[in-house]
Amino acid sequence: MRMLDLILKKRSKGEHSPQELSFIAASAAAGSVPDYQIASWLMAAFLNGMTERETVALTRAMAASGRRLSLRGIGKKTVDKHSTGGVGDGISLALAPAVAACGVCVPMMSGRGLGHTGGTLDKLESIAGMKVRLDVPRIEAQLKSIGVCMFGQSEDLNPADRKLYALRDATATVESMPLIVASILSKKVAEDLDALVLDIKCGSGAFLSRQADAVELGRRLVKTAGGLGIRCVGLVTSMDQPLGRAVGNASEMRQAIDVLRGDASCGDYVELVRVLGGWMVHLAGKAKGWEEGARRIDRAISSGEALAALKAMIAGQGGDAAVIEDPKKLLPDSPHARDVVSPSDGYVVKLDARAIGGAAVALGAGRGRMEDAIEFGAGIRLEKKLGDPVRKGEAVARLFAEAPEKLDAGQAAFQRALAIGRRKVPAKPLIRKVIR
Amino acid sequence: MRMLDLILKKRSKGEHSPQELSFIAASAAAGSVPDYQIASWLMAAFLNGMTERETVALTRAMAASGRRLSLRGIGKKTVDKHSTGGVGDGISLALAPAVAACGVCVPMMSGRGLGHTGGTLDKLESIAGMKVRLDVPRIEAQLKSIGVCMFGQSEDLNPADRKLYALRDATATVESMPLIVASILSKKVAEDLDALVLDIKCGSGAFLSRQADAVELGRRLVKTAGGLGIRCVGLVTSMDQPLGRAVGNASEMRQAIDVLRGDASCGDYVELVRVLGGWMVHLAGKAKGWEEGARRIDRAISSGEALAALKAMIAGQGGDAAVIEDPKKLLPDSPHARDVVSPSDGYVVKLDARAIGGAAVALGAGRGRMEDAIEFGAGIRLEKKLGDPVRKGEAVARLFAEAPEKLDAGQAAFQRALAIGRRKVPAKPLIRKVIR
Repeated sequence: MRMLDLILKKRSKGEHSPQELSFIAASAAAGSVPDYQIASWLMAAFLNGMTERETVALTRAMAASGRRLSLRGIGKKTVDKHSTGGVGDGISLALAPAVAACGVCVPMMSGRGLGHTGGTLDKLESIAGMKVRLDVPRIEAQLKSIGVCMFGQSEDLNPADRKLYALRDATATVESMPLIVASILSKKVAEDLDALVLDIKCGSGAFLSRQADAVELGRRLVKTAGGLGIRCVGLVTSMDQPLGRAVGNASEMRQAIDVLRGDASCGDYVELVRVLGGWMVHLAGKAKGWEEGARRIDRAISSGEALAALKAMIAGQGGDAAVIEDPKKLLPDSPHARDVVSPSDGYVVKLDARAIGGAAVALGAGRGRMEDAIEFGAGIRLEKKLGDPVRKGEAVARLFAEAPEKLDAGQAAFQRALAIGRRKVPAKPLIRKVIR
Repeated sequence: MRMLDLILKKRSKGEHSPQELSFIAASAAAGSVPDYQIASWLMAAFLNGMTERETVALTRAMAASGRRLSLRGIGKKTVDKHSTGGVGDGISLALAPAVAACGVCVPMMSGRGLGHTGGTLDKLESIAGMKVRLDVPRIEAQLKSIGVCMFGQSEDLNPADRKLYALRDATATVESMPLIVASILSKKVAEDLDALVLDIKCGSGAFLSRQADAVELGRRLVKTAGGLGIRCVGLVTSMDQPLGRAVGNASEMRQAIDVLRGDASCGDYVELVRVLGGWMVHLAGKAKGWEEGARRIDRAISSGEALAALKAMIAGQGGDAAVIEDPKKLLPDSPHARDVVSPSDGYVVKLDARAIGGAAVALGAGRGRMEDAIEFGAGIRLEKKLGDPVRKGEAVARLFAEAPEKLDAGQAAFQRALAIGRRKVPAKPLIRKVIR
């Protein structure tokens, strides 16, 4: 098979066979075809599209380009959640242990933060000693013993995706539905999943701001996952303001511990853990519907089993499990702090998630480029959320940074995210649509 | 300027500014942008097209990527001919000196043979000592003293075209009208031309077999050349059988000498030299119309001035000028020869140019890959042409090769090119269309 013929075929709107897509994925992973040929094919695929059959075959081929978890002998259903990324979206940190505490195996391959969105791996690493670069045998062993593991995409898992993603990023071919779907789902196929719950963020802080686009992506993901033999449900959820009250790394890790301890002050965060977790438990066959699943999540939290699962996971991955008992001390905020106060009496009518993500990056909590270091204690605590009443001079948020000068940039960015109005604006529902 | 933004623009069907196209051409020439980004842009340009304004700007930018001839002080109009490539198309070898003999400056940048089409440079190199790799000062000096020079595309002339062409060839983006037009005309802009005559081959031996495609390419070339300030006429000409009677390197060089000596036995070859030359002389302002120009070509040949110009050019480029007096001896055919005879009485109804080009390659006269060596004496002499009557057992062609076993492959290929019929088939006109 020659790559030139495959480029020609896609350029001419042809449909690839599974063998052809295997050749492309394997060649990308092995580096046996020049980057310029892969890049040219990516642009042809971007502009001429791919059929559903091609998307399923490319996803399988990408997953097959590296090692895969082998979890069949574990005696439990394996279920993961995937989020398309938002601000303050540290949901996984509480969700994965809670679902595992309901008797489900949760292998969660996670990413790092880039731009205005944070990354689960960075949040985990705010715990001293915590390791997220794990090899396949260790991941499998921990899933057998504890039922939950959170880890990064290692060298040997799905090398085709890493190569294709890097080239797409450099050739303006990221926003292609079939390529997005294949990239997301090939990682899930490599996790050997039975079921998958998708959290498709929609709103100012999400990469898709229009609901129609989020629904379209959700439909395609659910359909292709079905073609791959993975039970899948997609939830389109609001990302107009950050989830919960923390935006940062140590603070979001701390918030997850607080939630699993029963703290209900982060209403939207807790609600999303219940709904996503409810669906995961249901798809694993441990509850008749998502509502029953959500009640099982409630019980796992109130009984302390979810917190115990988080503690076991932290210990299993080399982290200091004492954070569970004393999160304030072991996951401290940065030393320099400043309040952003309301300029008038009224209601919070805008708390733009993307701009707040940008403020967190300015404070040192995120990355502009993948090489940048992050400061675990930097970030934002939201004292008010959308619709809350506020008085002039009252704190809307508290900013934290390692260096006082970063507070200026963070404050300027936060102020652009904020608007106070005279009248309360009705909130959009958190769960906008369920796609099955 | 960032290449990523330019890829995004073309991907989204935007129109590039001249500055953006300059950036692309200069980056390709300098290697300052990764090949995969250029390749991705090429596919986007292939699929989304380019406007006339973009094509003009890209052509200028490519020409500006390297050195250019400077012929303004020469006191003559500079005119070139460009052929899209055919079989037995050694026209330039006689045409360029004949036009130069009419007082026109003819800088002719030529190529090498690949696949079934031969290359002018290879034919020139069948003359002992002949040099075609010349630097810019030497080309300019010869054009000033003799008025004609035939040379290859050197390292410093149009490096952007060499880079883009190599990438197009490897990424299935060759057959794009704007990219073809820019590649052809950027070489002409670098030649500092006043006028250009295009010979757009059409038929089985041409890269465009359909007349509509040839006319479309001709129209675009003429229009874009106009936008570049070059007077341009395009002739769509037949390439259903090889031109003239020789297919090979030494033999085509010899044929050119014979034609300039007054040999009229190659009717279609002589006719094309008259018409193309007539237009070149006319566009240079040396004749009122192409017919008057053709009569000036006739006189340049009959007076011996055209042959003298060829001799001066050969001597100027280090070649053995004695070939002019004794072409049979100094441009010999290969020693092993075989006739292909007619299987029946009748008329030649098929003499497929592409297949005959393939037979010449099999005999050793051409290249399958750019690295291959060629044998100057190998090739084919056509004893009959389309429409000629032939008797059973009479020779239709004589094949020449350095090794007798190559005659078998050449003969088999030639026989597939040939058909003898009972009734004479009317010939298509040599000049099918004139595009101004």
